Amino acid sequence: MAIASAETQVCLIMVGLPARGKSLIAGKVKRYLGWISVKAEIFNVGKYRRKENAQPDASFFEPHNTQGEKARRAAAEAAVTDLLKWFKADTNNTVAILDATNSTRDRRKWVHERITAAGIDAIFVESKCDDEKLIMSNILEVKTTSPDYKGQDPEAAARDFRKRIANYEKVYETIDESERSYAYVKLINVGHQVIINLIQDYLSSRLVYYLINLHIKPRHIWLSRHGESEYNLQGKIGGDANLSSRGELYAQALPGIVRRSGVPQDTQLVIWTSTLKRTIQTARYLQAETKWDQLEWKALDEIESGVCDGMTYGEIEKTYPEDFAARDQDKYNYRYRGGESYRDVVIRLEPIIMELERSDNIIIVTHQAIIRCIYAYFMDSSSDKSPWMEVPLHTLMKLTPKAYGTKEERFKADIPAVSTWRGKGSAAKHHDSISDPNGPPTIIVGSPEN
Amino acid sequence: MAIASAETQVCLIMVGLPARGKSLIAGKVKRYLGWISVKAEIFNVGKYRRKENAQPDASFFEPHNTQGEKARRAAAEAAVTDLLKWFKADTNNTVAILDATNSTRDRRKWVHERITAAGIDAIFVESKCDDEKLIMSNILEVKTTSPDYKGQDPEAAARDFRKRIANYEKVYETIDESERSYAYVKLINVGHQVIINLIQDYLSSRLVYYLINLHIKPRHIWLSRHGESEYNLQGKIGGDANLSSRGELYAQALPGIVRRSGVPQDTQLVIWTSTLKRTIQTARYLQAETKWDQLEWKALDEIESGVCDGMTYGEIEKTYPEDFAARDQDKYNYRYRGGESYRDVVIRLEPIIMELERSDNIIIVTHQAIIRCIYAYFMDSSSDKSPWMEVPLHTLMKLTPKAYGTKEERFKADIPAVSTWRGKGSAAKHHDSISDPNGPPTIIVGSPEN
Repeated sequence: MAIASAETQVCLIMVGLPARGKSLIAGKVKRYLGWISVKAEIFNVGKYRRKENAQPDASFFEPHNTQGEKARRAAAEAAVTDLLKWFKADTNNTVAILDATNSTRDRRKWVHERITAAGIDAIFVESKCDDEKLIMSNILEVKTTSPDYKGQDPEAAARDFRKRIANYEKVYETIDESERSYAYVKLINVGHQVIINLIQDYLSSRLVYYLINLHIKPRHIWLSRHGESEYNLQGKIGGDANLSSRGELYAQALPGIVRRSGVPQDTQLVIWTSTLKRTIQTARYLQAETKWDQLEWKALDEIESGVCDGMTYGEIEKTYPEDFAARDQDKYNYRYRGGESYRDVVIRLEPIIMELERSDNIIIVTHQAIIRCIYAYFMDSSSDKSPWMEVPLHTLMKLTPKAYGTKEERFKADIPAVSTWRGKGSAAKHHDSISDPNGPPTIIVGSPEN
Repeated sequence: MAIASAETQVCLIMVGLPARGKSLIAGKVKRYLGWISVKAEIFNVGKYRRKENAQPDASFFEPHNTQGEKARRAAAEAAVTDLLKWFKADTNNTVAILDATNSTRDRRKWVHERITAAGIDAIFVESKCDDEKLIMSNILEVKTTSPDYKGQDPEAAARDFRKRIANYEKVYETIDESERSYAYVKLINVGHQVIINLIQDYLSSRLVYYLINLHIKPRHIWLSRHGESEYNLQGKIGGDANLSSRGELYAQALPGIVRRSGVPQDTQLVIWTSTLKRTIQTARYLQAETKWDQLEWKALDEIESGVCDGMTYGEIEKTYPEDFAARDQDKYNYRYRGGESYRDVVIRLEPIIMELERSDNIIIVTHQAIIRCIYAYFMDSSSDKSPWMEVPLHTLMKLTPKAYGTKEERFKADIPAVSTWRGKGSAAKHHDSISDPNGPPTIIVGSPEN
């Protein structure tokens, strides 16, 4: 399935005052696009400005500071020039995001002309926000993480940053009817109100759907594979087997592990499983104890292995040696005969990701390949690595989306299980590795974007 | 997969002047919801008003005509009362659409109170339109089809209807900031600009996504099964066989048949196929001759028949007699072991339908079950009938969406093929029925909605 035809190149031009989540939105869009194999890049004007003016104070951003204005204009010029070069270098470079305030009509007119003159579609994405809580949390983020304030007193940084915002406010013009000939999306208080103007093609429409589903309330996502199954014991893939007796123990332990992982008080999770017995059986005790809502999604079923369904890796290697080798060569794109590739799985998981973006706290009990794909979305892992990721049985993962990345914690059950992980080139049935009993939670924090 | 949790009940309250496509939008939303198995009903206030005032002239709609105002208010009361009864009668009744002008703030406040007091979510859907061409085409539609003007001179009807619109314009208040506490979607010139306010839950978000994808430019959709395959000859289902020699002839004939079906001048179609060889082979000559863009969609692959893949119906009946009987009992919901049900297919086809709603002219070369599902969407066929629909090989279907329904034409190729249609209870391999050679195009027009 083509997400974008080769000819379409789209530039998203961010608009908004500082501390309105523009960079956060840009980062999420880039990550989402990477996940669906669309090449995207962020061009942050602040980075260009910092080359000459590393840590200017608020006065640099005053509307009548001609030197400041000149330097900021030069930074925008440099960013747009690089952005256009990037589009020209490769027609597969599909979406560029110009991350800057672009807060006046004049500036937007200039950017729009530069972009469209190069044959690139331009879409403005404005984040307009007067929710003080949201702005405050963004200011907190900036004063502690922005290179503009590195090494400075956080309180002085916050004061200066507020002055900078005030300077932008003096000239800020929100997108209105006078700019109705532009394609734009205006996000007001993230998710509260959205205005969509002149959005036409397929890729743009998908981007808009993603943007309108974004929310930024704090929440968690729990991921678990089903408990060990009869097929796991035999080293067989696919099928619709029951849990093994150890898998059954994991199902019984799951409510306690979920509690131990920390569920915020008065919080109802929603339980998602696939339609296969082993995930439904795994969630059974959790559902019975908590009475949380439960949904079965066909889209969460394990990767279809077609003619290989029910075989061991050894049998596959013997029966379909060329396929076995081809899968090792390019596991993401290899499609089982009569079955699916990881790429196919990502496509069918997209509604799941959209729903996850919209939702609060979800626990997903599903399968190895599915977890790899969902994990890749949140942790921004590349398609050549994610299909090889080890996802141990009898281990609960808790993901917490943060402003720039996703925090991960793992909680292991004290219940042995076979390892179903297979290294490249190996056809070993499995090593009967026992999960580290009662080990401390592993905490891995996703690498910050850009 | 649950589309809506049992508790959510949503009322879409249409807003807009007459001739702004409100009923058309309401009808499409109802059809879409029916297709994804969400129970929906339209409550048209005009119908209630006609019980007492069948053919009032424009003066009835004057703002100061107290008798007219009273009668119109009574009609709205009656419609809302029935609507609330409908929600109460069955918790599976999920989406009601109140089709009326609701053109003043006062009226909207009243409706909103009535709906939300009953625990129903209310979403206003305003169609605002100043595109004269669009309004004119709607007026044309009304004067020729509305029961309000049945039996009247069309020109007099159009004049009176324009007066009626003018009367509504005197009091019309578009939804604005003063109503920001309501959830609403405002469609401005259908697709040009969309404003989305306070849309929260899953079902609402999907409805909004559907609404923003709607366009109403005239266009066509062509549907064809692949040419006869080697598996078709053997009576086998599934697989990834090549075309038979007769299937190859159909592929060669397809460009001519498409031309014969009438492609509007200077129109580029886009060719969609599945990822299976028989559809790609069928589209081969068409693509070579026309150079039209071509996309391969995994979502257009034939229904997965799991363990039955590659078997004949006779073999399935012998090997899995219970499954064979269960499928006949409820073909829409029956899921092949390790495969899919028609319900599953509909879910994976949803992105296809969204893209079809957004697109202009598309020709789809795909498979029997897939065509049945796409056809069911456009023709509003029920889920107990659509899986049994006969879709002959070597026949091109051309669908033309109209204001109230879809026009269908069929163009048969003069190339014999086996029939793969199986009646309920039968396991016959196939009868070697020959398509009526060179017969005139069969034209079937979908029944108008509501």
